[in-house]
Amino acid sequence: MRMEADVRIEPLKLYAGWFCPFVQRVWTVLEEKAIPYQYIEVNPYHKPESLLKLNPRGLVPTLEFENKPLFESNVVCEFLEEQYPDHGSKLLPADPFERAKMRISMDFVTTRIIPSFHRFLQFQPDQASGSIDEVRNEYLKNFKEFALQMEATGPFFTGKEPMLVDFVLAPFALRNWVFDHFKGGLGIPDGGNGGQDEEIWKRWRSWASAVEERPSLQQTMSDKEHYLPIYQR
Amino acid sequence: MRMEADVRIEPLKLYAGWFCPFVQRVWTVLEEKAIPYQYIEVNPYHKPESLLKLNPRGLVPTLEFENKPLFESNVVCEFLEEQYPDHGSKLLPADPFERAKMRISMDFVTTRIIPSFHRFLQFQPDQASGSIDEVRNEYLKNFKEFALQMEATGPFFTGKEPMLVDFVLAPFALRNWVFDHFKGGLGIPDGGNGGQDEEIWKRWRSWASAVEERPSLQQTMSDKEHYLPIYQR
Repeated sequence: MRMEADVRIEPLKLYAGWFCPFVQRVWTVLEEKAIPYQYIEVNPYHKPESLLKLNPRGLVPTLEFENKPLFESNVVCEFLEEQYPDHGSKLLPADPFERAKMRISMDFVTTRIIPSFHRFLQFQPDQASGSIDEVRNEYLKNFKEFALQMEATGPFFTGKEPMLVDFVLAPFALRNWVFDHFKGGLGIPDGGNGGQDEEIWKRWRSWASAVEERPSLQQTMSDKEHYLPIYQR
Repeated sequence: MRMEADVRIEPLKLYAGWFCPFVQRVWTVLEEKAIPYQYIEVNPYHKPESLLKLNPRGLVPTLEFENKPLFESNVVCEFLEEQYPDHGSKLLPADPFERAKMRISMDFVTTRIIPSFHRFLQFQPDQASGSIDEVRNEYLKNFKEFALQMEATGPFFTGKEPMLVDFVLAPFALRNWVFDHFKGGLGIPDGGNGGQDEEIWKRWRSWASAVEERPSLQQTMSDKEHYLPIYQR
């Protein structure tokens, strides 16, 4: 994780939590587009007055733009794309139909993938209904459905360069190791072992590798040991 | 409800259910922007092959554009705004910050108002936890929070003319009479009876009246008696 952003004083401020995948979406987009910003780490147990004045619920990410607040990570990402059109590469397709298709995939992440991520993560062996295999399979089924929406050659969702949909899912995919650590395994088959789904998993693996290697995502992640106490709960 | 749209043959097709509030969002935007389209009523128990080919889950609304499908009502509405910039009035603000603010309010409808609408609607007196007053109060609290986001004079959310956020919430607000019919009353105070919240409820009532009188919304509603069997379940 890069922290030198902390010391810059910029009119654009990101109120953040280093561990939060929703923050990482916005943080990554700021880095990708090389938009100057000030990173402000928020202690969730002692939120700064400057944040509470902007956003009484004190949620992160909150973006301060010209002394006014914006929140909801996907909305903030789209705002950055629209407000800074000449910074970095385009993160949304120019064509309205293609842009709508990308928003449908972003919505799939919000309404299908993330809830199944949390059900898997929060599964307790003593809970009354369901088994861990069910929640795991539901999570993987959503990944397969997502991979089927991708352009065929990749490695990113729509081709050689990452777009907003990649940065919307990546923070969750980059936390998938917690299932190996705490939940008996994520369950995505290794290369060549995907059986009848091998082609789909191959596409998923090429996407996941490309995302893992992306500098903007590496710079906005911390070392695994720092996440352990958070996901252990 | 106007049905003459059915007979037009247009390249843009709306697969719809007359009773569905999510369909009504898209339908209203098509009417507001005077975009030529063909309305196709879908029997949910016997979905047409043409729809299943576009959208295997057969959900409505599905928009067919150049033989390709789009779904998710808010995404479809934004697509219509972007694809037909010269049709009718603008439904999203031109300024990126204002547009982001409107998307935050649209997200508030999705993540807060609609779930509380359904909890209130589905409340059964014999259910183990909670009382109908709790689910009613939660629903009304969300309306108040929404009203507080509105521009002060109105009558619509941002002023004299309706924008997308109005059409995103309106189909639900227009169904509020079902709470009077089935759930012992919606509970929004009449004019002058709002107590310390009177100013907020006044703003809400002026918004609700403006929405009720909007021709595009009237034309995409049916008579109440047709909704009764649907909400009685």
